[in-house]
Amino acid sequence: MAGSDRSKAGGWAGPQPVFVLVRPQMGENIGASARAMLNFGLEHMRLVAPRDGWPNPAATATAAGASAVLDKVQVLESLPEALADLEYVYATTARPRELTKPVVTPEAAMREARARIGAGQRVGVLFGPERAGLENADVARANAIVSVPVNPAFASLNLSQCVLLVAYEWLRQAGADDMQVEAPELAPQVEIERLAEALEDRLEASHFFWPENRAESMRLNLRNMLSRMPLTRADVRMWHGIVKFLSERWPRG
Amino acid sequence: MAGSDRSKAGGWAGPQPVFVLVRPQMGENIGASARAMLNFGLEHMRLVAPRDGWPNPAATATAAGASAVLDKVQVLESLPEALADLEYVYATTARPRELTKPVVTPEAAMREARARIGAGQRVGVLFGPERAGLENADVARANAIVSVPVNPAFASLNLSQCVLLVAYEWLRQAGADDMQVEAPELAPQVEIERLAEALEDRLEASHFFWPENRAESMRLNLRNMLSRMPLTRADVRMWHGIVKFLSERWPRG
Repeated sequence: MAGSDRSKAGGWAGPQPVFVLVRPQMGENIGASARAMLNFGLEHMRLVAPRDGWPNPAATATAAGASAVLDKVQVLESLPEALADLEYVYATTARPRELTKPVVTPEAAMREARARIGAGQRVGVLFGPERAGLENADVARANAIVSVPVNPAFASLNLSQCVLLVAYEWLRQAGADDMQVEAPELAPQVEIERLAEALEDRLEASHFFWPENRAESMRLNLRNMLSRMPLTRADVRMWHGIVKFLSERWPRG
Repeated sequence: MAGSDRSKAGGWAGPQPVFVLVRPQMGENIGASARAMLNFGLEHMRLVAPRDGWPNPAATATAAGASAVLDKVQVLESLPEALADLEYVYATTARPRELTKPVVTPEAAMREARARIGAGQRVGVLFGPERAGLENADVARANAIVSVPVNPAFASLNLSQCVLLVAYEWLRQAGADDMQVEAPELAPQVEIERLAEALEDRLEASHFFWPENRAESMRLNLRNMLSRMPLTRADVRMWHGIVKFLSERWPRG
């Protein structure tokens, strides 16, 4: 991979699957697919017999910014040529056929693809033309079928959406672990304690804990609520300010 | 839900998150978002102040087939109105802000949303306008941020692609719903909104928002913090009492 590509891909591009668009029709969809791929760090696209030839100005216009993909797209006349150097091929279809092949989700496919690529295999994913999708003769050349689980009563994924979902799963499988939840850094308990004390003191002086026989449970509820809140240090500072301003500077009526 | 909707959704529609498009611009993107939702069985869309009004012929044309979504879309003038009955709200943003909120992947968000909805909460997901995305003031009203992990050197997800990915994760998590979360029953957003207003009014009178050039960001921080807290109805009542007692009954001096 050239240095300029690497900088464009932000270093995301190691060995990757090749996405093969089979007989794509609209240039706009080729461009949108290139963008969808690059969103998730994928740069290797092949086109098999694109209807409007190549280069395609509509594809270039739509891809704007995703030139890292289109600049090195490979155009082949037939599917066998496009698959020649690949060792494992997935075919995306809306409806799994009666072809006896494993049918997997995008998630399972991309997890497996990472393992295969990690082991040195060259992997491809086939996407069919806009209207009809892949023909049985295309799918027959693949090792496995990828099918996106959709609402059976409404399945209208278009080409670039299908590319988007598979590419998303590719990146998602990268380090499913380190993509985990980022939680704000909470204040240490001692700060919550001081805030609770400050608030209780003020409320005590304001006769909030009343009547006497309910005071104890009101205090408990207050503590309970404060300790259940995910308060950061900044939140705690803000609440100290709020308590102070509310109780001291209010020009009484 | 009407019988015709159920047949259209193929029985996929149980309790679901509401997808809220905030100030969407192009009707085509509203229609494409409706299709993306219905692909994964989601039917509840709200629009906040759509630029071109409503109904929108371009949206209807693009949505062709996804009328189960558009026929019952709810159009609101402001974000607080759109969130009023929701108890937990996610905001999608490309770049997590300095707003202190949990930042989660679509996967983690939809897994959690299933657990929350299973526990009876009403959940929403906010999507920003095409060009600029959600403003800080919008995000400040959400409980958590959803961010799609993308190639940092090329992040060009558009509105309907973002909707597609979150909807895809919603359906994908269908089988993963054995993760039980015991969630306290949270107050609906309208009650948070009223508490925020009451507190802001008091603080305003106490000259808390000072100096003038910081007032706006102080207000934003306050909103942001309140919407991040898991407040129950009882908590909200207690805070109304606290604000009232602190500001009215404190014997000065």
